[in-house]
Amino acid sequence: MTLASNDLPFSWPIRVYYEDTDAQGVVYYANYFRYMERARTEWLRALGVDQSRLLNEQRRMFVVTETKAEFIAPAKFNDQVVVTARLAGLTRATFDIEQNVYLNSLEGQLLLRGGVKAAFLNADTLRPLRVPAEFFQGSSL
Amino acid sequence: MTLASNDLPFSWPIRVYYEDTDAQGVVYYANYFRYMERARTEWLRALGVDQSRLLNEQRRMFVVTETKAEFIAPAKFNDQVVVTARLAGLTRATFDIEQNVYLNSLEGQLLLRGGVKAAFLNADTLRPLRVPAEFFQGSSL
Amino acid sequence: MTLASNDLPFSWPIRVYYEDTDAQGVVYYANYFRYMERARTEWLRALGVDQSRLLNEQRRMFVVTETKAEFIAPAKFNDQVVVTARLAGLTRATFDIEQNVYLNSLEGQLLLRGGVKAAFLNADTLRPLRVPAEFFQGSSL
Amino acid sequence: MTLASNDLPFSWPIRVYYEDTDAQGVVYYANYFRYMERARTEWLRALGVDQSRLLNEQRRMFVVTETKAEFIAPAKFNDQVVVTARLAGLTRATFDIEQNVYLNSLEGQLLLRGGVKAAFLNADTLRPLRVPAEFFQGSSL
Repeated sequence: MTLASNDLPFSWPIRVYYEDTDAQGVVYYANYFRYMERARTEWLRALGVDQSRLLNEQRRMFVVTETKAEFIAPAKFNDQVVVTARLAGLTRATFDIEQNVYLNSLEGQLLLRGGVKAAFLNADTLRPLRVPAEFFQGSSL
Repeated sequence: MTLASNDLPFSWPIRVYYEDTDAQGVVYYANYFRYMERARTEWLRALGVDQSRLLNEQRRMFVVTETKAEFIAPAKFNDQVVVTARLAGLTRATFDIEQNVYLNSLEGQLLLRGGVKAAFLNADTLRPLRVPAEFFQGSSL
Repeated sequence: MTLASNDLPFSWPIRVYYEDTDAQGVVYYANYFRYMERARTEWLRALGVDQSRLLNEQRRMFVVTETKAEFIAPAKFNDQVVVTARLAGLTRATFDIEQNVYLNSLEGQLLLRGGVKAAFLNADTLRPLRVPAEFFQGSSL
Repeated sequence: MTLASNDLPFSWPIRVYYEDTDAQGVVYYANYFRYMERARTEWLRALGVDQSRLLNEQRRMFVVTETKAEFIAPAKFNDQVVVTARLAGLTRATFDIEQNVYLNSLEGQLLLRGGVKAAFLNADTLRPLRVPAEFFQGSSL
């Protein structure tokens, strides 16, 4: 894998709609995990991984086994945020993805610092499979 | 089927949490359809229909084919609402469920007047099956 | 307002993520109403209406007073759909927006036919205001 | 505060509906954070804290500043789960709540181990306030 410390992480823009907010006037905390999955899905797509074919044809799927987030500042209705995804660790059984949320752009205010640990499963037995490291070729670690 | 015009409809209490609200300070319009499905699911359970066994063992499922709602007054964070479900029509291919949402109790303010048309499908082929009218025995029409 | 029967409606592309689907393997019915609002929000933005400034600076907001949808075929995980928004009626007190969902593009399979009736409110008193018809100048009716 | 290591934590039963699940057939990972907030809200209510009066009359609110979860086994459509909330730490500025999810009952299978760090804010300025420790009198720590 290539490693260049100044590589920009994969990032995905997301608009905040009413559905994402709550009566406190800001994005509801659980919804950031939806944003994070959208960015992971698009990052996998950019790496050439088609999750629906994986699931339907090969009966394999990714699952999140751990997640965490630190909420630094809130996003509000109509804000544009960008969500990153960067491979931060990889073993036979799991891989770690670091994910941050910024206001407007990667140069904007840091709103959330988070991440997930994920595994790769047989969709029928739900048993873990070796993480396919080749999926992440070209992704900096 | 029994028919008594003064029968109370099946009703299910639901508490409004932050997740249900939006930045306008009230329940987000799409989330009332989640409330309506919770009440339908509990109504079916009360009629003895176990949807997870239907799906997993018999590969049959209910699907909504049409829905509508008139939003009369908003529910707010921390409100308690009750959602009704009443069989309002039944043919070989579809059935209609009338659903209203009231504040606090069936005697409370009417917040929403709505309903769904539903069908019964083979979960593998997605082809329609005859609606099992026997499920609704004892339900007033 | 201009009226050209062959005008294409405003349309907005939306990707289906896991968050949108349910255990039946397709987009959960209530979530189409979230998709419809995203398309309405982007349509208003394209017409020059900034809903967050309206709310925060002028304390005015749009609310949905009625909605309906006919579910014709399901969207699945990873599908791309497009959602339309077209002004279909306008009175002093309310306006109607027709909204359809198509698979992939406006030429793709029709998945949902729906719409909303909306009103314009004072955000503090929740009292209805005259619908600002000028917002829709240039929108075909 | 009383401390008895064999105290049962506050727990809240939640039914899994279609809205909570995704195309993998299980509860979507972000939705467990909605479950956790329902349990926290009901725990606060049981402690005598009325969050809507706090917000509307005193302009004070709780916010989550950090959260994490370890997903051990999935909940499925129609499952009943119980979600716990237990005060696990308290400083002037923040408090920690431990939250687990079990299948069926506190004696059932552990599905999720998680928690949140929360703060207490002025709802207008979003500035932190001293955590009102008196809210948690009677809650074991």
